Amino acid sequence: MVYEIEGGVNAAVGFSSMGVHAGIKKAKRDMAMIFSRVPCVAAGTFTTNVVKAAPVIYDRDTIYENDYAQAIVINSGVANACTGEEGMKYCKDMAAATAKALDIKPTDVLVASTGVIGQQLPMDKIQTGIDMLSFTLDSSEEGAHLAAEAIMTTDTMPKEIAYEFRVAGKQCRIGGMCKGSGMIHPNMCTMLSFITTDVSITKELLYEALSENIKDTYNMVSVDGDTSTNDTVLLLANGMAENKTIDEKNDDYYAFVEALNAVNTYLCKCIAGDGEGATALLEVKVNNTATKDDAITLAKSVCTSSLVKTAICGHDANWGRIMCALGYAGVDFDPNLIDISFHSKAGRIEIVHNGISTGYSEEKATEILSEDAVTLIIDMKCGDASAVAWGCDLTHDYISINADYRS
Amino acid sequence: MVYEIEGGVNAAVGFSSMGVHAGIKKAKRDMAMIFSRVPCVAAGTFTTNVVKAAPVIYDRDTIYENDYAQAIVINSGVANACTGEEGMKYCKDMAAATAKALDIKPTDVLVASTGVIGQQLPMDKIQTGIDMLSFTLDSSEEGAHLAAEAIMTTDTMPKEIAYEFRVAGKQCRIGGMCKGSGMIHPNMCTMLSFITTDVSITKELLYEALSENIKDTYNMVSVDGDTSTNDTVLLLANGMAENKTIDEKNDDYYAFVEALNAVNTYLCKCIAGDGEGATALLEVKVNNTATKDDAITLAKSVCTSSLVKTAICGHDANWGRIMCALGYAGVDFDPNLIDISFHSKAGRIEIVHNGISTGYSEEKATEILSEDAVTLIIDMKCGDASAVAWGCDLTHDYISINADYRS
Repeated sequence: MVYEIEGGVNAAVGFSSMGVHAGIKKAKRDMAMIFSRVPCVAAGTFTTNVVKAAPVIYDRDTIYENDYAQAIVINSGVANACTGEEGMKYCKDMAAATAKALDIKPTDVLVASTGVIGQQLPMDKIQTGIDMLSFTLDSSEEGAHLAAEAIMTTDTMPKEIAYEFRVAGKQCRIGGMCKGSGMIHPNMCTMLSFITTDVSITKELLYEALSENIKDTYNMVSVDGDTSTNDTVLLLANGMAENKTIDEKNDDYYAFVEALNAVNTYLCKCIAGDGEGATALLEVKVNNTATKDDAITLAKSVCTSSLVKTAICGHDANWGRIMCALGYAGVDFDPNLIDISFHSKAGRIEIVHNGISTGYSEEKATEILSEDAVTLIIDMKCGDASAVAWGCDLTHDYISINADYRS
Repeated sequence: MVYEIEGGVNAAVGFSSMGVHAGIKKAKRDMAMIFSRVPCVAAGTFTTNVVKAAPVIYDRDTIYENDYAQAIVINSGVANACTGEEGMKYCKDMAAATAKALDIKPTDVLVASTGVIGQQLPMDKIQTGIDMLSFTLDSSEEGAHLAAEAIMTTDTMPKEIAYEFRVAGKQCRIGGMCKGSGMIHPNMCTMLSFITTDVSITKELLYEALSENIKDTYNMVSVDGDTSTNDTVLLLANGMAENKTIDEKNDDYYAFVEALNAVNTYLCKCIAGDGEGATALLEVKVNNTATKDDAITLAKSVCTSSLVKTAICGHDANWGRIMCALGYAGVDFDPNLIDISFHSKAGRIEIVHNGISTGYSEEKATEILSEDAVTLIIDMKCGDASAVAWGCDLTHDYISINADYRS
């Protein structure tokens, strides 16, 4: 069991954070820092895009080569992607400056960037930001909240959460913050997520828990089908909950995985629901497929279909588009077995039964689809695997946000 | 060499056609017929969607089981998709009624439908339409043009073309018409294409020519990434040009393939440029990849990216989005080798050289991207294969067209 608590990335014992305005963006907070009093084991997962931003390469190598991490420094406004050797050097400089300010090892600092592709980081402003952040780090809810705010780009709201869970009688905490709202803003990019926990766990199991869980969480989110060059999830565990270190896949491990899943699921729904221009969170549940991969493929196909997304925007129970998107997903199935239901706060209605219309009430269906979070439940009736994907509707505002000039 | 001529699907000797208003749609022409004085060898390619409309299954089986075809009857307004056994029976009834009206064999009639998914065909109106069409078939340009008009749904213009070509000293003709503008209109579907030629060719080579050519033409078009339940290309060859029958892959065969490619390429550009809500045809050329499959995958990834499509809508030289879409396509490459140029009637400009910005003029780039047809040329520098994909920009009108209710 997990219980929601306050505090975001500061909820776990020993973590402090902050967000400031360093001048990279005109008026908004644009740099954040997360710091742990003691070194943490760290795990990271990164974009599969062949075009990887410099901080993605830097963090991947740093986590691989070092046993611990103790701080993360993040900027928004400039993505440090497509920036060549110079971009790689700035990652190292950013980590070195942070290490100096915090009096820790440079190799214990991770970096992350989000913003415009193709521009170099303004290193003077970055240095100013690091100085400000290191002096003002704060372990309260407020510090975590300002950090969550500082990593936003086209996001309309900060995204943070924390949970409490028990491992062998010890209270532990896990908190996270993320940003992401499209591949993003004209020429901008990235989903970034930062998770902190005070659980004690080995680096190997921390990585395994994260890399398994992202398959059901971050990898199931799509705002616009564009996989960014900067996508990063970083997870720090500092062990200050003083539980017996989790070093095997026992009940303790699964208690941690449950809490990690709760954080990631919450943050993913935030990202999808706050997709660029979105008015509704779209949740697609595909049940009873032959394999888990089939369920994932089908759920993603429906969730990313432009025609399904515009139908949700129009509150239109357009099931032909759902059948169509299932059909071209690349999974074989019998269309004559499919049931489709719509679900939201306004109720639940079955639209399709055994592949044809149930003769449902269009009025009731529209009412259900007019909420700010709607779920499509698709029963394939050919097995017992299932998957959930998250997306959002496709609206005029998405076009306005992304067709504007980059000025 | 091929030469453009007038006459659309009536350009080839022996073909006549017509389009009428049978009352399926409120006020627009909604039924078309194509007829050849003599039986034709026929080839077809159909949607890969698992959810196949009834006429797709009917035509696939009819072409497979019979040596010849002599007429095609088409309706717009109702797609006859997700209609079960009843829908299959109506295909047979539609073919039988057409055969009776034209005094030919029922098995020599092919059928096609486009429109709303999930509704049954109004067979009384279909019968009326068949009677009207069979009495008014016309071998002039006008007949072909009215047929091209009658198969439109959300298309803003009819799409037809014809070419003349020589096979071993004989003049031959090939013409085509198609429709398609999205997976289409609220709950509508389909790309339909009909091609007629008077060349004499074996059924086997006709099929091979078509199935090879669609890989470079129809399969490279994407308006919104949604593969319809009804996609159909039908090709009839009646032999009335009296050339020596093409029965091997000699120069004659390749002369025919060149003409077929010219028809299909023209029609594909029409479909892409007339995509729902589109203001511009987007052509993406990917050159110098290791394999043809790599080139296809990369070209499609760029051409279907929502962020690239909205950038074209905004006349914005947003090359970071192009790099990003190349990067997540699933093909491995070195980002530091890539060159990207933009080309249109307004000129040509290199934007990216060896993976970084050329420091181009944003003003000039915007001017080039403001034309109604723009080409992105991407040089991967890792081989000698290439591919071209066609799409369009993503605009407010696409959202308006597809987010409206189905009324």
